[in-house]
Amino acid sequence: MSETSDIQPLQPLIVALRRLPGVGVKTAQRMAFHLMQRDQDGARALAQALVQTLDSVVHCQRCHTFSHQTMCPICSDAGRDAARLCVVETPADLAAMERTGAYRGYYFVLMGRISPMDGVGAADLGLSQLLARAQDGQVQEVILATSFTTEGEATAHMATELLKARGLQVTRLARGVPVGSELEYVDLGTIAHALVERR
Amino acid sequence: MSETSDIQPLQPLIVALRRLPGVGVKTAQRMAFHLMQRDQDGARALAQALVQTLDSVVHCQRCHTFSHQTMCPICSDAGRDAARLCVVETPADLAAMERTGAYRGYYFVLMGRISPMDGVGAADLGLSQLLARAQDGQVQEVILATSFTTEGEATAHMATELLKARGLQVTRLARGVPVGSELEYVDLGTIAHALVERR
Repeated sequence: MSETSDIQPLQPLIVALRRLPGVGVKTAQRMAFHLMQRDQDGARALAQALVQTLDSVVHCQRCHTFSHQTMCPICSDAGRDAARLCVVETPADLAAMERTGAYRGYYFVLMGRISPMDGVGAADLGLSQLLARAQDGQVQEVILATSFTTEGEATAHMATELLKARGLQVTRLARGVPVGSELEYVDLGTIAHALVERR
Repeated sequence: MSETSDIQPLQPLIVALRRLPGVGVKTAQRMAFHLMQRDQDGARALAQALVQTLDSVVHCQRCHTFSHQTMCPICSDAGRDAARLCVVETPADLAAMERTGAYRGYYFVLMGRISPMDGVGAADLGLSQLLARAQDGQVQEVILATSFTTEGEATAHMATELLKARGLQVTRLARGVPVGSELEYVDLGTIAHALVERR
């Protein structure tokens, strides 16, 4: 019998696809087969997008979101309300906040949340950078807009403790956002409502 | 408000990831975020695997499976039974047949099956190449090992008509394989049993 690597030349691609979150061996096999048999253009486009994104995207030095520049377009916008700083978990959450049109302040993106299951502790989030950012002398209110999940609440709780200890005013999105849901999936009206009623 | 492409620099990667089968926009967002925030090595490995696979993997000119050579290791093996030709849908199905250890003939890999829903008709499968392969003068029996799904059965039916019209003996894996399942998921003992009892 031939070696597996000989009769399965897609094996290296299958192994690489398994590093995508939520992709097991059968899904990876199907993806590899699909790309090589039906969509080689898609495979090339994906390889190119990966390389270009790796080469061109950095973290904004001020808010930590993904950006093509050292400072992202929002942080570079001097016309926003410097007294408000909104803390979100991911760039997708930031985008959801922006789409509400109800917020004109700046952001800080944690790029994650406390998650003991995934080995993400307080030290892995940029909490010390958040403290430095919030203490720039202009920020008067830090609005915590982490998800209303157990992990998001734990993250908000820890951030609140740290920020209040430094004398900063901390608010949280109102509980109009349905408990147990994640921010980026919530309808915009609910997010806007919760923003107005922050406490 | 900033442009979406400015505040979402991962957008090109998200678009590229959506070409993977079964990946919608939310899954693609999660994959892109995971790769860029937590596993840039994985992103590089995936880009490299895609390019290397695209550049090095071709179809075996004899059986159509994926291969690093013009002729795959199985087709190059002169020690196999040239009187038997087993028709499977995918390289994964071929691998499952090989793992049973119960088959010593050659293969023909359709690289798909008739699927009107996905726009895959008889012309898209290599049925004419299968006819040419089966009429090499050595093949005495063509064993159809397509899946026992509606689509696999339709494929087997069409192949049977074409092959019998040319005077070839056609057999089908015994129905020991549970109806409604796909070959690559079936346990090896069941496949081996179905091979022995082919009719």
